Amino acid sequence: MGFGTMTITLYDTTLRDGTQGEGLSFSVDDKLKIARKLDEFGLHYIEGGWPGSNPKDMAFFARAQDLPLRQAVITAFGSTRRAGRAVEEDDNIRSLVAAGTRAVAIFGKSWDLHVHRVLNTGLDENLRMIADSVRYLKARGREVIYDAEHFFDGYQANPTYALRTLAAAEEAGADVLVLCDTNGGTLPSILTAIIGEVKKATCTPLGIHAHNDSELAVANSLSAVQAGVVHVQGTINGYGERCGNANLCSIIPALKLKLGYDCVTDEQLRTLTSLSRYVSELANLSPDAHQPYVGRSAFAHKGGTHVNALLKCEESYQHIEPQLVGNCKRVVVSELSGKSNIAYKVKEFGLDLSANDQQSRQVLQRIKELENQGFQFEGAEGSVELLIRRAQPGYESPFELLDFHVLVRNGYDGAMAAEATVKVRVGDQIIHTAAEGNGPVNALDLAVRKALLPFYPELADIHLTDYKVRILDGEAGTAAQTRVLIDSACGTRTWSTVGSSTNIIEASWQALADSLEYGLLIHGEEARHGTLKRQRLTSTTQVCPKSVGE
Amino acid sequence: MGFGTMTITLYDTTLRDGTQGEGLSFSVDDKLKIARKLDEFGLHYIEGGWPGSNPKDMAFFARAQDLPLRQAVITAFGSTRRAGRAVEEDDNIRSLVAAGTRAVAIFGKSWDLHVHRVLNTGLDENLRMIADSVRYLKARGREVIYDAEHFFDGYQANPTYALRTLAAAEEAGADVLVLCDTNGGTLPSILTAIIGEVKKATCTPLGIHAHNDSELAVANSLSAVQAGVVHVQGTINGYGERCGNANLCSIIPALKLKLGYDCVTDEQLRTLTSLSRYVSELANLSPDAHQPYVGRSAFAHKGGTHVNALLKCEESYQHIEPQLVGNCKRVVVSELSGKSNIAYKVKEFGLDLSANDQQSRQVLQRIKELENQGFQFEGAEGSVELLIRRAQPGYESPFELLDFHVLVRNGYDGAMAAEATVKVRVGDQIIHTAAEGNGPVNALDLAVRKALLPFYPELADIHLTDYKVRILDGEAGTAAQTRVLIDSACGTRTWSTVGSSTNIIEASWQALADSLEYGLLIHGEEARHGTLKRQRLTSTTQVCPKSVGE
Repeated sequence: MGFGTMTITLYDTTLRDGTQGEGLSFSVDDKLKIARKLDEFGLHYIEGGWPGSNPKDMAFFARAQDLPLRQAVITAFGSTRRAGRAVEEDDNIRSLVAAGTRAVAIFGKSWDLHVHRVLNTGLDENLRMIADSVRYLKARGREVIYDAEHFFDGYQANPTYALRTLAAAEEAGADVLVLCDTNGGTLPSILTAIIGEVKKATCTPLGIHAHNDSELAVANSLSAVQAGVVHVQGTINGYGERCGNANLCSIIPALKLKLGYDCVTDEQLRTLTSLSRYVSELANLSPDAHQPYVGRSAFAHKGGTHVNALLKCEESYQHIEPQLVGNCKRVVVSELSGKSNIAYKVKEFGLDLSANDQQSRQVLQRIKELENQGFQFEGAEGSVELLIRRAQPGYESPFELLDFHVLVRNGYDGAMAAEATVKVRVGDQIIHTAAEGNGPVNALDLAVRKALLPFYPELADIHLTDYKVRILDGEAGTAAQTRVLIDSACGTRTWSTVGSSTNIIEASWQALADSLEYGLLIHGEEARHGTLKRQRLTSTTQVCPKSVGE
Repeated sequence: MGFGTMTITLYDTTLRDGTQGEGLSFSVDDKLKIARKLDEFGLHYIEGGWPGSNPKDMAFFARAQDLPLRQAVITAFGSTRRAGRAVEEDDNIRSLVAAGTRAVAIFGKSWDLHVHRVLNTGLDENLRMIADSVRYLKARGREVIYDAEHFFDGYQANPTYALRTLAAAEEAGADVLVLCDTNGGTLPSILTAIIGEVKKATCTPLGIHAHNDSELAVANSLSAVQAGVVHVQGTINGYGERCGNANLCSIIPALKLKLGYDCVTDEQLRTLTSLSRYVSELANLSPDAHQPYVGRSAFAHKGGTHVNALLKCEESYQHIEPQLVGNCKRVVVSELSGKSNIAYKVKEFGLDLSANDQQSRQVLQRIKELENQGFQFEGAEGSVELLIRRAQPGYESPFELLDFHVLVRNGYDGAMAAEATVKVRVGDQIIHTAAEGNGPVNALDLAVRKALLPFYPELADIHLTDYKVRILDGEAGTAAQTRVLIDSACGTRTWSTVGSSTNIIEASWQALADSLEYGLLIHGEEARHGTLKRQRLTSTTQVCPKSVGE
């Protein structure tokens, strides 16, 4: 592109500002997992939480010190000291230092209205609060990112004072001055004009932190970069309070592909779609199919003539090549997507089906039938691989469930009880047994394992690591179609399986049975073929993460 | 604001381009209903469909002639004539005329690549196709809106030719030249620069038609207006192919409240939230809670200190007054809340608790305990209101569940069966009954309704509209804590309730019991207090369509 020399620093706040979003919360383990992914993706700073505000965030910073990160700097977030308090006695500032991170972000007030009416203090004391806090943290060796809260609103109300707050942070040694559109109400034209004024008045690198209340957060972030800002804050999928934060999943490809800025590598950019879906999985939020760049429908084409034009000329209806961000073109009329998808998958799994056209067609047919019933295989490659393997001649399932009952009872004493009885066949033996559990699906899981364990002692090594339920047609109320996804692990190997039914117990059973069958299968193969096989299988999950059978 | 003299023409294409979105389709009746709403809202043009492409759209135009519209002009959409064909013999052009609308929109090619490789024709023939088609339709008395497809991509590839296509339309008499960012890949800075060039080369009013593939459709539409465009196309909720069209629900309030353009009246703008939700209801798509301006979370505030600041100073964390677009501020109750959140809630529900500090504290305590157990009240205002009501002296629950069993069975025939038996007390009567269902929760729902219906016939009006399951600690596998959210409705009233347990049946029961109890409660109050009460309740609903009891 000919430019490409400018570098932009990417600052992720999914784990802090993102979790302010209604309905979003991450465990400490989730946060650590996401931090690793963000680092692999190439983000430069990861704001991990507000150590002064809750103990969960403090636990994150303690454990994050052991994360084997490549480059990302874990950053703790907090506010400037309180009004009328010495900085070294301020609990919030002390927690920031205690978090032990190399970088800290602190926010201060830029808007005189807030100083008077929210902080209930004077304009000069606010300037001292900013300067004291920045200076104190700099003296403790921290890189200090200064977030000028409500900067654009503050500037419009009182430009002189807003600039004085920046000057206070700058003189105290702040490394970056981040201009925040906290309420998300600023238009790009006004934002750009204000940044121009700030550039005249300061010489510290500038950052942008935008919110999406006017559906302009991405535009504001890009306009800010075009106006000379070099540090961009945002969240994965635009998660965040109210209408969300600026969406890094849209900002990063625009910076790299449309504006030619250096920020992540081409290889890293190709994992954007999988990063987006990974975070939505851990957040247990359905990915937005229409999300730009990474959504399942972002490059989906409906209708005959349109698809026809696309076949004649790829760029005719696509603004970028979807592969660049790890997404794929999708032709919505599924009859057209055809056998080639299965052939692709078979090859990816290293199986032998490809020669046999008839079998490919059968597997495809079966996938389509099941997707019609509510299955979705894009997140469940364990189930896809089983479908393909079952179509191979001579495949034998390690067990078969003949019958089960699940009873849930809530008695006068208020205690819940769940009990399952199962009848299972292994070879020519039939096992009939029962177990109690923490709920109906847990009871079923325990009963089946009890039945199978004498035949397959390796089941003791196979663990369920995640269990997710999604209601597909919520409007059908309690009679809705349900989809269950189960993630399982055996040592370092992980796999996902799927089930779907209007009956949640049945859907859970399908996913559970696939999970156990797949686990036994790979356990057996690894025992037979050793590490070579393991190598090959582990690499498969990464190619086009969610495209099978779409 | 001091400007406010410029007028913008709003052109809605929800019924045409919007329906290209995956998963979206409207019946002719739906389209007619939406057209009336769009007209009431104040939109100037309503693109109803492509009469040449399907008979359903032709039926719409026939019936739309009888719609009692105030001002909106129904518009038919189609393409320029085919290459090498006389315009009067072109089926598509004939259908456009047959639609009988006062205005027609036709799209033509601006991008030389498309002329060569998609149309397979020459550059001059494409110019004749544009000119012939516009001239023919003008001669038949139509107002002609010319959509320059892929204009920005075309201009960047071959600016001279792209401008010649506009000149062809202009010379033939087009009333508006609409510049389309069909692939949604253009940045605002480039778009603005190109519009500047177009303005130098043409003198017909200009329009903008943007797509959201780069998450920039709203920004591009607003930038276009700031660059002198006077006609803006978009869809309600940004529905449309791939990542959607420009979202009129974000563009209109920005034009009116932030840029001071005249487009709809203040009264009309106050119905924006209800228009958005009406269209999503007919589209059978869940409204996006985080949608700017109109989303349920667009003005939602979580966390004690934040709510505290908001109470001190409304504008401190809101970019506009939510009432201006018919939305409302929402204080979210969660474990982060203080007493002020509960006090706010009590007042909002019109209850009497506020005087009694001790009771507030108890309710808050109970909410915190339950959230520790996995409940989450921020999306379940029905359950919050019940907690508050139950703390009031003399509150009596309309029913009590004494005992239940749920049996799920998968027999040799492969068919699943679910059966529930329940024992319920109403006053001093005990009812013991059973029902079969589509799954365990559905069976329980049906059995409880069967038990209660003789006492509360109004239950027949209470419907479950959504049922959501979230696994909280998926890593516990099938023994994980489960949270169930149920949305319910009775007429136009809606409410949400929550349950949580490791046993999904128990969690579902809790949410279901709250849903029914809350429904009976408000039904009873409306019946007792008649219209006065209803008035109060309904007026809350209008101020904030989906906020009551949520």
